[in-house]
Amino acid sequence: ENIGRLVIKCPDQPGIVASVSNFLLGFQANIIELSQYSLNPEGGTFFTRIEFECPDLKSKASEMKQEFRNIGEAFSMEWKFSDVSNIKRTAIFLSNEPHCLLELLWEWQSGDLITDIALVISNHEDSREIVESLNIPFYYIPANKDIRKEAEKRQLELLEEYKIDLVILARYMQILTPEFVAALPNRIINIHHSFLPAFIGAKPYERAFNRGVKLIGATSHYVTNDLDEGPIIEQGIERVNHRDNAEDLKKIGRSIERSVLARAVKWHLEDRVIVHENKTVIF
Amino acid sequence: ENIGRLVIKCPDQPGIVASVSNFLLGFQANIIELSQYSLNPEGGTFFTRIEFECPDLKSKASEMKQEFRNIGEAFSMEWKFSDVSNIKRTAIFLSNEPHCLLELLWEWQSGDLITDIALVISNHEDSREIVESLNIPFYYIPANKDIRKEAEKRQLELLEEYKIDLVILARYMQILTPEFVAALPNRIINIHHSFLPAFIGAKPYERAFNRGVKLIGATSHYVTNDLDEGPIIEQGIERVNHRDNAEDLKKIGRSIERSVLARAVKWHLEDRVIVHENKTVIF
Amino acid sequence: ENIGRLVIKCPDQPGIVASVSNFLLGFQANIIELSQYSLNPEGGTFFTRIEFECPDLKSKASEMKQEFRNIGEAFSMEWKFSDVSNIKRTAIFLSNEPHCLLELLWEWQSGDLITDIALVISNHEDSREIVESLNIPFYYIPANKDIRKEAEKRQLELLEEYKIDLVILARYMQILTPEFVAALPNRIINIHHSFLPAFIGAKPYERAFNRGVKLIGATSHYVTNDLDEGPIIEQGIERVNHRDNAEDLKKIGRSIERSVLARAVKWHLEDRVIVHENKTVIF
Amino acid sequence: ENIGRLVIKCPDQPGIVASVSNFLLGFQANIIELSQYSLNPEGGTFFTRIEFECPDLKSKASEMKQEFRNIGEAFSMEWKFSDVSNIKRTAIFLSNEPHCLLELLWEWQSGDLITDIALVISNHEDSREIVESLNIPFYYIPANKDIRKEAEKRQLELLEEYKIDLVILARYMQILTPEFVAALPNRIINIHHSFLPAFIGAKPYERAFNRGVKLIGATSHYVTNDLDEGPIIEQGIERVNHRDNAEDLKKIGRSIERSVLARAVKWHLEDRVIVHENKTVIF
Repeated sequence: ENIGRLVIKCPDQPGIVASVSNFLLGFQANIIELSQYSLNPEGGTFFTRIEFECPDLKSKASEMKQEFRNIGEAFSMEWKFSDVSNIKRTAIFLSNEPHCLLELLWEWQSGDLITDIALVISNHEDSREIVESLNIPFYYIPANKDIRKEAEKRQLELLEEYKIDLVILARYMQILTPEFVAALPNRIINIHHSFLPAFIGAKPYERAFNRGVKLIGATSHYVTNDLDEGPIIEQGIERVNHRDNAEDLKKIGRSIERSVLARAVKWHLEDRVIVHENKTVIF
Repeated sequence: ENIGRLVIKCPDQPGIVASVSNFLLGFQANIIELSQYSLNPEGGTFFTRIEFECPDLKSKASEMKQEFRNIGEAFSMEWKFSDVSNIKRTAIFLSNEPHCLLELLWEWQSGDLITDIALVISNHEDSREIVESLNIPFYYIPANKDIRKEAEKRQLELLEEYKIDLVILARYMQILTPEFVAALPNRIINIHHSFLPAFIGAKPYERAFNRGVKLIGATSHYVTNDLDEGPIIEQGIERVNHRDNAEDLKKIGRSIERSVLARAVKWHLEDRVIVHENKTVIF
Repeated sequence: ENIGRLVIKCPDQPGIVASVSNFLLGFQANIIELSQYSLNPEGGTFFTRIEFECPDLKSKASEMKQEFRNIGEAFSMEWKFSDVSNIKRTAIFLSNEPHCLLELLWEWQSGDLITDIALVISNHEDSREIVESLNIPFYYIPANKDIRKEAEKRQLELLEEYKIDLVILARYMQILTPEFVAALPNRIINIHHSFLPAFIGAKPYERAFNRGVKLIGATSHYVTNDLDEGPIIEQGIERVNHRDNAEDLKKIGRSIERSVLARAVKWHLEDRVIVHENKTVIF
Repeated sequence: ENIGRLVIKCPDQPGIVASVSNFLLGFQANIIELSQYSLNPEGGTFFTRIEFECPDLKSKASEMKQEFRNIGEAFSMEWKFSDVSNIKRTAIFLSNEPHCLLELLWEWQSGDLITDIALVISNHEDSREIVESLNIPFYYIPANKDIRKEAEKRQLELLEEYKIDLVILARYMQILTPEFVAALPNRIINIHHSFLPAFIGAKPYERAFNRGVKLIGATSHYVTNDLDEGPIIEQGIERVNHRDNAEDLKKIGRSIERSVLARAVKWHLEDRVIVHENKTVIF
């Protein structure tokens, strides 16, 4: 309802904020929230996220975008203009463990996660009932390393068919091919069940248990072609002790994974995350 | 050197950011960090903190201030312009427990607290040696409710003599009179040894112990005339358990008090705190 | 399966551990986990919780209890002997907000909460569907201050009928009468949506927002006749900031409430909580 | 004064607690705090830590130790009997960064760290003044990989001369030889400035910054011959964000290092740490 957002990344120089704010003023837009950050003021990179209220945004939006191109070019900006009333569409992928899916569904039902959950894709049938009971389409697509290509082909068709903006890997235990990742740059969010970069790869809780750590964690990040090496969006930890065995760590970890993934997804949906050189700026 | 700050509070309306950023651009200033927040976009209050780099700031500063008055009046702003190279001057008050003083001295020595600690005032002699060893003047001013007026008179004289910007009550266990508080509005920071508003007043750790709480806390706030009711700047907590007696809570609490007070002071010194209706905006 | 527990509280004196461990050895029981705590060694109170493995516990249990009476009398103990395979039976009460109920159901389904959820009672119909879908009886019992007596009468009948060991108030927004509380001493667990003793009573999030706190919390406690004054079992907090309005605090608070209540209930079910003088020992 | 401790590790079997508690009762000792843990009840390992009060402990101690040998042999125990009034003697090693030293000195001065700090050894002169001002001997022993053997020879002579029980590496940036480590098994505590096993080795804060983590940590562990791979005693973390550069991470990290090391040392001094298969049980 008349709320828009501008997210910008460009080489730093004087005058950026002035140009952008004059532009907004020209459309009678009032800035609600502005965050800005510069990496190294001299010769660095400038980042900003602006949320504004603009009367009749719907009718003005295309003109605004058109006109902003000049500013974008003048400052060599990467920029994104969005009308908040255009809800982002998400696809949730999971394997057999449902806790992250359930958390997302829950926050979505209670109005805390503003998105259209357009479909759920799983290589297990377990979650069909709960998903379909909420009138969300559920697709069972078997997947393993031998049939990866076919599985991803079907997945990508569905993502296109459903016009998906964001893929959420809610404990989807399959590796994605570079082709799949390239199709959705910085638009696939994963939850890894360790405090990265500790315990990259398989069985992190077992390895955490064997190492005798006193805190365990989870990490939500954008997926890149390097396993568990993509830009980190959010991390969380909980304290454990010698009484907790590997199974206990998994249980404790589930609750960290749930909340860390939900926060990361929420920030992405609110356009709060800007990726820069394999790191994230979170506004 | 050449870093300045503008901190602004005013009724919200379109055009504020544009005006301020045009003003800065006119002086060739480049915005380094800009934070903005609006309380209720329609008819609410607008807050911003802008840190900028401006060539020859020292020579331009008075002209900038002069010129900014027009913008300030046009938007009914409360505003503060500062040259970061003008280090703020602080006075630390304490009674007999030195842990908060020691933390502040430590962070100051390691360059984490950018201030001139101009003097230390105490109603106990205990800390004289450590303070004077750092070449900071130490004043012993006895204080209790019978001699409050005389004590405060002497304290205020010293604050004026040393041109103090900020008073830090680092476990100063005396109540201040309304006159004293009025002399330094939003410029006296206290650390209260509880998670306010729980355990307002005396002996919070004993009362926390008696209540059987599982977490204890500390609160740093600006001092007003209502005891422990001023705007909260920062709070922290630690977990405790049934094995911890009141004495243990005090020990655990000391480490919370140290870090909470240090953070609050740092934010104040960096002009990150704006007071509004007995609450704080922290940028 | 052959796991038993002894939970003991008595005046401290030498020989308690020796007597109890000799007793267990006499029945070929092996201690798995023993926690002990003494309040003030001289003339204080002794607390212990012992978990043991005992071959053929089922057939020996009544003889063990019989024999333990002598030790209990000799040391003036309050004690409880339990066979872990006798699962405790719980009743969940709630009003219209389902998040705490959902968390408990979830942890119960995933095997993290070892209890029989025998029934759910609510003064709203909202949760019927989700509860009945899990084959748990759901009772709608209207309640307000005018019909409190009738409502409680019906509730107590159901608790008796279903042989309930523990009542969980999972955001049940009705005050209980002293008669109801007296019927289940230290067997009613409530979740209060503030960091007690701050914000006792109604609308804690609104009051937290108005006070401008930087951390909000939730508290799980046994219910007594003094509102929100019962023995605290567990507390949790989350950080908030000036951008969070009262509605945001509620959302953030819901996730604290969920996890704090679930932990408190789990500890109670595992006999880890001993109440002493309106405080708790948690083993 | 009359407080003793027994710390025991042995193969699990029924009767251990009974034997030990009967033994203590035979000397009129009253158990103050008993913690027990069994790794895998059947065929696992049994751990206990017992703190007791015993009249005339000083005069009975050697007889008690003598007599306990029988129990120790019968159950194949590793055990340690200690009279709490025999304060442990510590040596603190550091290089140029003093924050961990200062924290330890501070907690020691305020009575929170019960130990005799017998000497401080550094390969830098910087901390001499502060150490000697507290009447603690300070030894400057240059160290680098070329003169490691000579340096360690001198260090070991001093440790013997001063009858040191525990060496604390308070940011001592030299690698120890296997000979040095072997001389003090599980009696050298290090603080590593990362959340292990992430960022083993040099420059962890730079690497954490480059990876873009959202939490940084510190880890205190016993030193073994595998760099940063010894049994972990304690870990802590703090949240960071994109505004924090590598230098900021170091500052934030210092406060984590201080508190994590202090807790680990305290637990060791109180005989709360038992090492088992490169992990720790903390009672």
